[in-house]
Amino acid sequence: MTADLNKYSVRTDLALEAREMAQPDIHVPLPGVEEHVENAAGIRVTNLNVYNEEGSRAMGRVQGRYLTLEVPGLRKKDSDLQDRVATKFAQLFEKYLIESGVKSTDKVLIVGLGNWNVTPDALGPMVVENILVTRHYFELVPEQVSPGYRQVSAVAPGVLGTTGIESSEIVHAIVEKTRPDVIIAIDALASKALERVNTTIQVADIGIHPGSGIGNKRKGLTKEILGIPCIAVGVPTVCYASTIVNNAIELMKEHFKHENVKSRDVIGLLDEVSEQERLQLVKEVLEPLGHDVIVTPKEVDEFIEDMANIIASGLNAALHEAVDTNNVAAYTH
Amino acid sequence: MTADLNKYSVRTDLALEAREMAQPDIHVPLPGVEEHVENAAGIRVTNLNVYNEEGSRAMGRVQGRYLTLEVPGLRKKDSDLQDRVATKFAQLFEKYLIESGVKSTDKVLIVGLGNWNVTPDALGPMVVENILVTRHYFELVPEQVSPGYRQVSAVAPGVLGTTGIESSEIVHAIVEKTRPDVIIAIDALASKALERVNTTIQVADIGIHPGSGIGNKRKGLTKEILGIPCIAVGVPTVCYASTIVNNAIELMKEHFKHENVKSRDVIGLLDEVSEQERLQLVKEVLEPLGHDVIVTPKEVDEFIEDMANIIASGLNAALHEAVDTNNVAAYTH
Amino acid sequence: MTADLNKYSVRTDLALEAREMAQPDIHVPLPGVEEHVENAAGIRVTNLNVYNEEGSRAMGRVQGRYLTLEVPGLRKKDSDLQDRVATKFAQLFEKYLIESGVKSTDKVLIVGLGNWNVTPDALGPMVVENILVTRHYFELVPEQVSPGYRQVSAVAPGVLGTTGIESSEIVHAIVEKTRPDVIIAIDALASKALERVNTTIQVADIGIHPGSGIGNKRKGLTKEILGIPCIAVGVPTVCYASTIVNNAIELMKEHFKHENVKSRDVIGLLDEVSEQERLQLVKEVLEPLGHDVIVTPKEVDEFIEDMANIIASGLNAALHEAVDTNNVAAYTH
Amino acid sequence: MTADLNKYSVRTDLALEAREMAQPDIHVPLPGVEEHVENAAGIRVTNLNVYNEEGSRAMGRVQGRYLTLEVPGLRKKDSDLQDRVATKFAQLFEKYLIESGVKSTDKVLIVGLGNWNVTPDALGPMVVENILVTRHYFELVPEQVSPGYRQVSAVAPGVLGTTGIESSEIVHAIVEKTRPDVIIAIDALASKALERVNTTIQVADIGIHPGSGIGNKRKGLTKEILGIPCIAVGVPTVCYASTIVNNAIELMKEHFKHENVKSRDVIGLLDEVSEQERLQLVKEVLEPLGHDVIVTPKEVDEFIEDMANIIASGLNAALHEAVDTNNVAAYTH
Repeated sequence: MTADLNKYSVRTDLALEAREMAQPDIHVPLPGVEEHVENAAGIRVTNLNVYNEEGSRAMGRVQGRYLTLEVPGLRKKDSDLQDRVATKFAQLFEKYLIESGVKSTDKVLIVGLGNWNVTPDALGPMVVENILVTRHYFELVPEQVSPGYRQVSAVAPGVLGTTGIESSEIVHAIVEKTRPDVIIAIDALASKALERVNTTIQVADIGIHPGSGIGNKRKGLTKEILGIPCIAVGVPTVCYASTIVNNAIELMKEHFKHENVKSRDVIGLLDEVSEQERLQLVKEVLEPLGHDVIVTPKEVDEFIEDMANIIASGLNAALHEAVDTNNVAAYTH
Repeated sequence: MTADLNKYSVRTDLALEAREMAQPDIHVPLPGVEEHVENAAGIRVTNLNVYNEEGSRAMGRVQGRYLTLEVPGLRKKDSDLQDRVATKFAQLFEKYLIESGVKSTDKVLIVGLGNWNVTPDALGPMVVENILVTRHYFELVPEQVSPGYRQVSAVAPGVLGTTGIESSEIVHAIVEKTRPDVIIAIDALASKALERVNTTIQVADIGIHPGSGIGNKRKGLTKEILGIPCIAVGVPTVCYASTIVNNAIELMKEHFKHENVKSRDVIGLLDEVSEQERLQLVKEVLEPLGHDVIVTPKEVDEFIEDMANIIASGLNAALHEAVDTNNVAAYTH
Repeated sequence: MTADLNKYSVRTDLALEAREMAQPDIHVPLPGVEEHVENAAGIRVTNLNVYNEEGSRAMGRVQGRYLTLEVPGLRKKDSDLQDRVATKFAQLFEKYLIESGVKSTDKVLIVGLGNWNVTPDALGPMVVENILVTRHYFELVPEQVSPGYRQVSAVAPGVLGTTGIESSEIVHAIVEKTRPDVIIAIDALASKALERVNTTIQVADIGIHPGSGIGNKRKGLTKEILGIPCIAVGVPTVCYASTIVNNAIELMKEHFKHENVKSRDVIGLLDEVSEQERLQLVKEVLEPLGHDVIVTPKEVDEFIEDMANIIASGLNAALHEAVDTNNVAAYTH
Repeated sequence: MTADLNKYSVRTDLALEAREMAQPDIHVPLPGVEEHVENAAGIRVTNLNVYNEEGSRAMGRVQGRYLTLEVPGLRKKDSDLQDRVATKFAQLFEKYLIESGVKSTDKVLIVGLGNWNVTPDALGPMVVENILVTRHYFELVPEQVSPGYRQVSAVAPGVLGTTGIESSEIVHAIVEKTRPDVIIAIDALASKALERVNTTIQVADIGIHPGSGIGNKRKGLTKEILGIPCIAVGVPTVCYASTIVNNAIELMKEHFKHENVKSRDVIGLLDEVSEQERLQLVKEVLEPLGHDVIVTPKEVDEFIEDMANIIASGLNAALHEAVDTNNVAAYTH
């Protein structure tokens, strides 16, 4: 398939969805992938551990541990649920950090990727705005820092089109200057399923790879590049229109197949709609506006603000022992 | 077709597109519809006059005069072009007012429909913010008002979900209290073509009808309801996802038809995909998020601000003789 | 004193401060004024009942009941305290409504006065944005409204300079159209004491009077004008610079008096600095920018958002029995 | 004088005002300082060259060239004047760069200091948002860059309280990584005169020094620290309340002196109000809110946006030959 058509295929940044696409039947295990799912009080938590090359190939994902929280109820703007999700996320993230070998005294740099002025891409900068930063106290008045806090700093490096500099270059520069032990990178993602938009959080210990997220990240933020671990926290804030159109075409094929058709010819014909032809169709539908067309709920502004608050609250509680993991919202703006 | 499925059909608020759908061949005239198109310097101006019941039925639109400016180049964020569009819009709108029987001393109330906090629906309130209002000078210090100005007031009534009151009720109340001679209502619209989103302005002397625009307007703003003429100015800021999916399915049908198919059966089969079945398919694709799903370019925030400035500049120049129609941008924020 | 100089005097919208100015000694009762103060957990609650003409003259305030919450700790941005203040405000406001004769089924219109685009004047519109409105459910689907809710609507009428219409005219028009039983008007106020800015809430059953608040309200919102009771809820968001300068000059006079001065002449001289001379001095200091100069803490944007949330949460809980007064924050954005 | 009281003295970041304080009579030259003033069409341009140690001491300023534009008319929100100021600023800044030895091919990094979320401190980030950045084109598609453009990048490093990292450290890191030839740092300043707030632009080739600007800059951005020249562009967006109070007290002293006082004792007494006593008075007035209290016109939000546009437009035209210096506004958002 030509590279040009690639951008019209179904696109997702969620490992969960990559798994679904690799093997739609949830009961059939994927070789090289460990899975664990649990549901409680409206929050579905999935752990996917892609632990070898075979799993990585099957899923089309980098090896690593993917933790996902799905909370369909967030669409209803229930503040109580938001608080519970923040608390759950804080507890899970604290455990995730420990399992990743991050020590409670390790210095953390939080990186909010994305663009303030493009709502669905503003998640990262919004989270940064609500992070409880402490590094400057450790630098300036170390004797006054209470126990239970660690060194946390936070930056929103902006996007290439606004700064003229790759965000990875800016982060790299700041890492060399301030020497954190671990990076937590926040980014807006794309999902293939509308119902996961603004209701899902993914944590992955693989950093940020070029081409993931909804902005244009040409260079990544990974341990290979930065020399320190990078944990990615993402929320799908959009679907690509191409994904919607692909879904439509797939459904139409299904529709014909399930009809009581008279001749084998038709089924043959349908099977002949190759992936390339399908993408060509998608391209024709979407070309007028190029590949940046996105699908969002109309109220995207509010949903993203809510998700940013949940993540900032959760990170503040997970990173500082002094911040109570059971009442995380109290510490955030 | 069931009412329930209706919302999954192709939806547009542009008369221009209703005309395209009624008769795709631009050279075949529609009975009851007068048309005039002119192109100049990147701005395409279409006048559609739906002058009798037959035209109204053919187009599925209320009788009235529809003026449309299409400026694909606005997508490139060229400030010079923006200024030229504002100037052209001012000149056309001034002429439109005269042809509508609005006198240069008539008192104008500008109504910005929509919701500040939902970006694609914020066009109306944004325009209101940049309108040169003068009514209070006429009320408080009439002797100090320079010649060349008329009485203009402007309100953004909010949306039902935020106020608990129909915006039409609020406007009706203000009309009774302040007695303007004519209303100009600004609203965000939906287009069926992605390339028209944020690049098109429509003027119509039909007011606002329930169900048009991208918000939920249960009651309209029309001469029948308000007792004074209401001119609607709109900009498409979104496509509905349903429109995109319908386009995809149509293209797929075309695709099969143009293939060198072996048997007539297939063509028959394709023709049998009734409109109802198609909408059912669309529904299956989109149901997860309901019917409010919209498609926008990612940078919608900036585009809408630009369009709001163009419209406010144009209205200020068209409404006040003292504001120079050739240099409209100078008077706006 | 000339009217012109009046605007350079100490200005306050708080009854509490008018009382302090009328009689600085808190233990000396003012005739015609009932007072009750209580302190608990960092929240100081003052009830001032100006019950006759004499009290009104002494305080320079309209007769009525003034309830004030002072919470200096709000300056520290402590979310726990914010929640406690919202809860306390909800409880006090619920009681205040009952004492004002407002029944639990009375229809309420909340009016957010002020200007979205001027931060210290944006309190009213911000509160409106977070109000739980229900009137449309009662109108459209009355059978689906759960018990424990009353009819609430909310509007932000804008300011004269933006709309060309007095906000009181707009409110009056909406009252005539929608027939609420009581109005609650939210407004940003001016304080004479910097420490009360953004840390104080005042409730008064006197409505809004021309000249109060930080915007320009030429006509008021009162029972006389509207025909229904109007309860004002305000937060001081600014000091006028004139107030600061007056304080400075007073302090300087005190300074001389307390010095061990050699001659009686000096004290005489100081006493001769008449109020008019003092205001003339203030005018000279402030004239360059006119009378709109305000003093705020630099972080005014955040403080006002916090106060708007507290008030909206409190109102939502106080107005609807179904919203739990003990956990008010959960129902707000 | 104790350091503690120092913060209650008259504070200004404008060299122009430092000159006025050093020698109020404009016709008396300051040794070590070259001055040139010109007025044209409502724009007053002052060049102050502090060329030796004596001038530096007299003014209390670092040696360097200070260019100031004063435009009182900007307070009237006249878009024509805004355009003319942007054009004038572009022409003067282009000349200033040449005189500073900056070549037309030198790579520029623009640094927007300050805090997005605190309106009067948001000038720098707002300018960055409107800068025409090109560095990435030179890096990625150098062959496609038209002649007449130079390499420009732009960052808003945030403030210490939000990031936990000194903004100078972040800038230093980015300079080491991206190797620009010159830095242009944009910052909000404090003025001592209300009428200069939001109507004045200062350019200085001295970089940013600790303690200047309205944010808290502990470390500077200077050639000594960064290894490359740093040109500061600033706009006063606030007065400190302390400055207003000092003015008031000075005026009161003048008032007594000019009165027909009976006894020499009084004049003696007034002269005895030492600077320390005066600051003690100021402290008493302002202590309740600490030293961050600022004075602004109420409409600060809009004024700062206008100034940010003027500066961004001007920089875009001055930095790229291909951007026409005579019509600068056309290239900005």
